[in-house]
Amino acid sequence: MQKHKIISNTTIKRLTKYYRYIEELDSNDISMVSSHTLGKLMNISPSLIRQDFNAIGEFGRQGHGYCIKSLKEVIGKFLGIDKSHNMIVIGAGNLGQTLANYSGFAEVGFQIKALFDINPKLIGMKINNIDIIDLDHLKSFIQDNDIDIGILCVRKHCVQEMTDILIDAGIKGIWNFSTIDIDVPQHVKVENVNFSNSLFTLSYLMKDKYLKKD
Amino acid sequence: MQKHKIISNTTIKRLTKYYRYIEELDSNDISMVSSHTLGKLMNISPSLIRQDFNAIGEFGRQGHGYCIKSLKEVIGKFLGIDKSHNMIVIGAGNLGQTLANYSGFAEVGFQIKALFDINPKLIGMKINNIDIIDLDHLKSFIQDNDIDIGILCVRKHCVQEMTDILIDAGIKGIWNFSTIDIDVPQHVKVENVNFSNSLFTLSYLMKDKYLKKD
Repeated sequence: MQKHKIISNTTIKRLTKYYRYIEELDSNDISMVSSHTLGKLMNISPSLIRQDFNAIGEFGRQGHGYCIKSLKEVIGKFLGIDKSHNMIVIGAGNLGQTLANYSGFAEVGFQIKALFDINPKLIGMKINNIDIIDLDHLKSFIQDNDIDIGILCVRKHCVQEMTDILIDAGIKGIWNFSTIDIDVPQHVKVENVNFSNSLFTLSYLMKDKYLKKD
Repeated sequence: MQKHKIISNTTIKRLTKYYRYIEELDSNDISMVSSHTLGKLMNISPSLIRQDFNAIGEFGRQGHGYCIKSLKEVIGKFLGIDKSHNMIVIGAGNLGQTLANYSGFAEVGFQIKALFDINPKLIGMKINNIDIIDLDHLKSFIQDNDIDIGILCVRKHCVQEMTDILIDAGIKGIWNFSTIDIDVPQHVKVENVNFSNSLFTLSYLMKDKYLKKD
């Protein structure tokens, strides 16, 4: 049963983490897990785990633990990773190539279909068997290949321009690795990976002991 | 005045974001900013901005806006980015090299001093003028060069082993780009950058409209 509760961003992050651990257990042929065991593995309280699972579905009887396959299915469906996603990378520099070389995304159904760049030295090359294509072909490629996610790995001066092109071509989600925030209409979703923000957070943690975990 | 309040992880993330915008304003020679203007720029409510700033220091008189230089100084100090940090990268593969090539970290005082690997083909090479060194020299390098942050870019089977070596050598913070969580003693701080978690979050956002922003 799918419940339409309001789920906080923090809970979503935790659900993605559960999914990762559950996948690992599944790949080790483990079929059941208790909230206690999962909590110990993930350093999360068992009661919070039960609360999170209750918020998104119904799983078996208490005291018997959770069926790994059910958890994987329900959480995967909840997170929208039960279907595959086609992605493209904008900007075939170091970071774009690194992401194209990473096989972990394809394993969970997120396929990088092409990289785009304006650099003639890069266009025509293949990274991990994925073509680097001239940016001029971006819009038609998105539409012809059912691309729903654009990965932004471009310099900040052209980030918004690239964003606008992606939106115009009908992209639904943007994974933004650039250092600036982007403006998008409400129907387009954005997830930012900002390395500097993350590094500043680490710096704070190292400096201060007053952090409340949430 | 430094107040020792408990600051949530969510607030820390917001403070790192303020710092980024304030740096940008400062580099454009802007000297004052109101919470209203900053809120519009960052898509955050002005009252939340004032509340966040009040939580970490005292800034000028209401109605006159905030002095950019003071904000930068106080937030920077609060986040521990008022002093420089020496970092090393463990694992000189695609991602490690990408991070070494990125100049943005050094600009804000986070210097990558070396990359470490076990691959003899990589050892001795330079990336962005930074040496790739044999992992055997890790411990002495950390101690001789006042390294406080280790960046983990290694495959998951050796992540914990590398973590243990870093901790044994006296590292204070670990920036973990690997796909698994690491065990550290309480005095060592960890910030995870997990690409799959981030991608799953995007997938959820694209699927569901019930997300509460927090």
